[in-house]
Amino acid sequence: MKYCSNCGSDSLAFKIPEGDNLPRHICGNCQTIFYQNPRIITGTLPIWQDQILLCKRAIEPRYGLWTLPAGFMENNETVEQAATRETWEEAQAKVEQLNLYVMASLPDRNQVYMIFCAQLSDLNYAPGIESLDVKLFKKDEIPWNNIAFRVITKTLNYYFDDRVIGEFPLHMTTLLKPINNNC
Amino acid sequence: MKYCSNCGSDSLAFKIPEGDNLPRHICGNCQTIFYQNPRIITGTLPIWQDQILLCKRAIEPRYGLWTLPAGFMENNETVEQAATRETWEEAQAKVEQLNLYVMASLPDRNQVYMIFCAQLSDLNYAPGIESLDVKLFKKDEIPWNNIAFRVITKTLNYYFDDRVIGEFPLHMTTLLKPINNNC
Repeated sequence: MKYCSNCGSDSLAFKIPEGDNLPRHICGNCQTIFYQNPRIITGTLPIWQDQILLCKRAIEPRYGLWTLPAGFMENNETVEQAATRETWEEAQAKVEQLNLYVMASLPDRNQVYMIFCAQLSDLNYAPGIESLDVKLFKKDEIPWNNIAFRVITKTLNYYFDDRVIGEFPLHMTTLLKPINNNC
Repeated sequence: MKYCSNCGSDSLAFKIPEGDNLPRHICGNCQTIFYQNPRIITGTLPIWQDQILLCKRAIEPRYGLWTLPAGFMENNETVEQAATRETWEEAQAKVEQLNLYVMASLPDRNQVYMIFCAQLSDLNYAPGIESLDVKLFKKDEIPWNNIAFRVITKTLNYYFDDRVIGEFPLHMTTLLKPINNNC
């Protein structure tokens, strides 16, 4: 942030406002305080019998690797609507019976992931504009070495472990940035 | 948003970027796209035996009304850390055994509330800078007509209903803006 988006001044300071305890961008001209907060990434783990739907990414980061359909929650929608919308956009798939399954904080990236377990409504899926391919995988077919993000690998592991017992409780977890800066 | 915070230009347009499907603020000079996303408000429902800790607000909106300790999640923290921090800041109270209890989407306000049930660690609580008073309430002492936000009233109702059965599952809910514009 180099200029004030309210008045256009370049007299921005990064300091702690009066009565606050964290530094913020503050405009020296119009005094506007700019807050920056974590963003929500939400999506689904679409289930069809003993299979899971994955998408092959057509965009960076992680072009060509596999992931669950998920993306940034937008303004003016609920978390469930956002997860359903992302599943439609990336996999052209309809889902139902959404249950919050993984909530992962990524404090180094200022992101919170919310992944819902969901039942695929039918087999009418296809790659959306951000996917190269969309495919159902049985557990032993999952491309474990080609998963795009660690939070997705973790979610898939939770799922296949929980499936043995048949119970799918909410998993709260934290992922810190590894030294090699992988996602 | 009136000026580009990257280059200071006033040639901002609000339109759909190529490959996107929602309008964003886009700078006509440096082409930067500005995304706006919902914010997370998180906090706790602090429990001590058959009592609940509430805070009387010392700030607007809803000055003088009662609420659970909660506030905006900051960058570089986990959701649980944010909920614990807000409980400390507003009620000077320590909490433990956090369990996600209410997740409420407020799509008209671009907010997602995440309230954790939590056990108060001890009775050393006191008003923080944003509170006029902090007090433990039994069910029949709750100031129902003076609760600051509808999502807090809903959370308290969930809790007292669930307490009868002794089970506290996650409640996913949506609150839409009422016609009278109340919070």
